Amino acid sequence: MEQSPAIGIRERARGALRGELADVALRLFEERGYDQTPVDEIASAAGISPRTFYRYFSTKEDVLFGDLPPTSADLPALLEDHLTRVDPWEALHLTLRHVAENIRTERGRWSRLLRVVNTSDTLRAGHLEQQMNLAQSLIPTLLPALEGPAGWSDLRARVLVHAALTCFDTAFSHWAEHEGDIEMLDALDIAFTTFPRTDPAQS
Amino acid sequence: MEQSPAIGIRERARGALRGELADVALRLFEERGYDQTPVDEIASAAGISPRTFYRYFSTKEDVLFGDLPPTSADLPALLEDHLTRVDPWEALHLTLRHVAENIRTERGRWSRLLRVVNTSDTLRAGHLEQQMNLAQSLIPTLLPALEGPAGWSDLRARVLVHAALTCFDTAFSHWAEHEGDIEMLDALDIAFTTFPRTDPAQS
Repeated sequence: MEQSPAIGIRERARGALRGELADVALRLFEERGYDQTPVDEIASAAGISPRTFYRYFSTKEDVLFGDLPPTSADLPALLEDHLTRVDPWEALHLTLRHVAENIRTERGRWSRLLRVVNTSDTLRAGHLEQQMNLAQSLIPTLLPALEGPAGWSDLRARVLVHAALTCFDTAFSHWAEHEGDIEMLDALDIAFTTFPRTDPAQS
Repeated sequence: MEQSPAIGIRERARGALRGELADVALRLFEERGYDQTPVDEIASAAGISPRTFYRYFSTKEDVLFGDLPPTSADLPALLEDHLTRVDPWEALHLTLRHVAENIRTERGRWSRLLRVVNTSDTLRAGHLEQQMNLAQSLIPTLLPALEGPAGWSDLRARVLVHAALTCFDTAFSHWAEHEGDIEMLDALDIAFTTFPRTDPAQS
């Protein structure tokens, strides 16, 4: 179904304003710190009321992350799909490569974001909680693909998922520290291949 | 040099009182929660003054962890020693096996501790910070043992150390959940061998 031009324009205008608000907020967070910048000040700096702000973003955290792909909600389905073709570790690698691809297309914004997150305990705690939730959503997807003694599958699925997220985080920080010199995808590939591929005969 | 008997007795008495205080504190933390139990109440429950408490433990956190081996300060030297004989991943495995051995000898206390830690944001945050510091102390030790392109060694050392600590934590939680049914060392071995050993020809 084709979108009507009127809705198209309204949606584009809404998108542009969200983008503008996100830019203003990120700049303020960089200058004053995330915890020290209330929504009132973001709204005021953007020349709108706090009430209007909340029509575009439901929380202060949302203005930081709201427009960024990918939604981690897609990742279990993506992992499930990869598991039909490759081994568990490689499937986790390909799934997180998808996240890294998205970071590549928004690289400037992501590295600024990472610096803001690292200055705020609130955001760091939020990030850890998100990561914990993401792990919890991937573990049951991985479980049926694991061979070997059933009694230990749960432990092994947890180890692989948490180690994969560790690879992602380590590569991401490394990339942010060496911005411009290395590619996020290269860093991610090096991180994952630091553990050699599982030999299917042994698993 | 032989210890004089007088000092021996004094030291043993001091050790017994520390152990008793640690028991009282652990019981109170389990009953009321760590954050809700001030040092005053621990001292009072043990029949001593808060001032006496602080002659035995310098902080509330210290009464929880102070008497437990191992001190993570020993781990870099232990890792360095293992690295002279085995590959980096196996060296990390053996180093953390040493920690797991110590947990085995105090298993009842450790599983009670883990439950207390999981109920307190303060303790969890403290644990994360300790883990971050431990990782920072192991990375430089591992670095010279890594082969392959020098530009990526730093990333690879970070990935291996953080993944090793992830294996430890995952095995530890798994063990605590299945207390009595599995051994911490078995869980740790399964976690580490979920990644196959590095083939020296490829590293």
